[in-house]
Amino acid sequence: MKLYDLERSGNCYKIRLLLALLRVPYERVTVSLDEGAQRSPEFLRLNPRGQIPVLVTDEGFAIWDSTAILVYLARRFGGERWLPTEPLAMARVTQWLAFEQNEGRYGIGRTRAIALKMKSSLAQMGHLEESQRLAETALKILETRLQEASWLATDHATIADIACYPYTAFFLESGLTPQAYPAIRAWFQRLEALPNYIPLPPRPQGPA
Amino acid sequence: MKLYDLERSGNCYKIRLLLALLRVPYERVTVSLDEGAQRSPEFLRLNPRGQIPVLVTDEGFAIWDSTAILVYLARRFGGERWLPTEPLAMARVTQWLAFEQNEGRYGIGRTRAIALKMKSSLAQMGHLEESQRLAETALKILETRLQEASWLATDHATIADIACYPYTAFFLESGLTPQAYPAIRAWFQRLEALPNYIPLPPRPQGPA
Repeated sequence: MKLYDLERSGNCYKIRLLLALLRVPYERVTVSLDEGAQRSPEFLRLNPRGQIPVLVTDEGFAIWDSTAILVYLARRFGGERWLPTEPLAMARVTQWLAFEQNEGRYGIGRTRAIALKMKSSLAQMGHLEESQRLAETALKILETRLQEASWLATDHATIADIACYPYTAFFLESGLTPQAYPAIRAWFQRLEALPNYIPLPPRPQGPA
Repeated sequence: MKLYDLERSGNCYKIRLLLALLRVPYERVTVSLDEGAQRSPEFLRLNPRGQIPVLVTDEGFAIWDSTAILVYLARRFGGERWLPTEPLAMARVTQWLAFEQNEGRYGIGRTRAIALKMKSSLAQMGHLEESQRLAETALKILETRLQEASWLATDHATIADIACYPYTAFFLESGLTPQAYPAIRAWFQRLEALPNYIPLPPRPQGPA
């Protein structure tokens, strides 16, 4: 299995974290965004979006989109644990995966991208104030859920937790909110205590 | 089963379409966005996002987010057809669900919301030119896929097709692109020929 990857990307980290937790071996291929490798014809054949991560399975099938890759790995290697197939449990995991793709990406992720003047298309999208409002709403929804429960979707960690973790952690450590969000921080600690956890990537673009 | 719903909402239509295709009976509860019913304390207890659709199951569990509701209904009532559990097939369905939540919503959906001056938070997010660029990229990706295959994720219709259909159809009929996209239009016809298909909701806000 081959992961087209970049060390500093939070979306790639989600995949590496699940692979580590599942103890599944894989090969990493670094895609240098600075050199535009993601827009090359070869790469666009793997992923028409021109984005990392992409996973190529042992059978040679390319899967793009971090959520789809998490679903693939959870179903293929995780039994019922990381993505249960019971309808309500699967819907609850999907709810938080969708939350990460909307409020997570366009609230939490975008606010950080704009505030830190990151070189991402997200940083050019919309205004700081509007992103910040969405980010605080998103963090309040996470905090409320995590005051009531240890994990987002079920009574144990699933790919919902893995998906929502990195950009929320980047945001809280970057000092972009005046709120404390203690339940979210306690959830970080539970995630970081999972067997075979690997640390978040280095964040050169964030303030110290 | 109870669907908190609004006739004109494309996200609610996705759910009604799948329920019709599956021939599953349900109760509809109209949530009047114009009167702010989605921000009432009762509704926020069902969905902290304050958005429709919400599905309340026969057992009384609330599921928010249209993608999560599609997953629930497909798993509960659709066997392996609308959301297969085989890892690669499920990943491919998820890929297009994620595509709809990103390129679909922030490209195709947002362009229409801005161009038609719709009263949605999406319409206030970002610029028309940037949204249009993302919309054309999204439509090109759909067109390329549908030149090669009849359906987005597998060799038959799945919830991926249902999710991507309404906002793409709204967009193409609204005259916001100079391109023809014949493969996308042929896919609309295949969708509209599915047994028990129900038509798209009325679009009072679009040009004639």
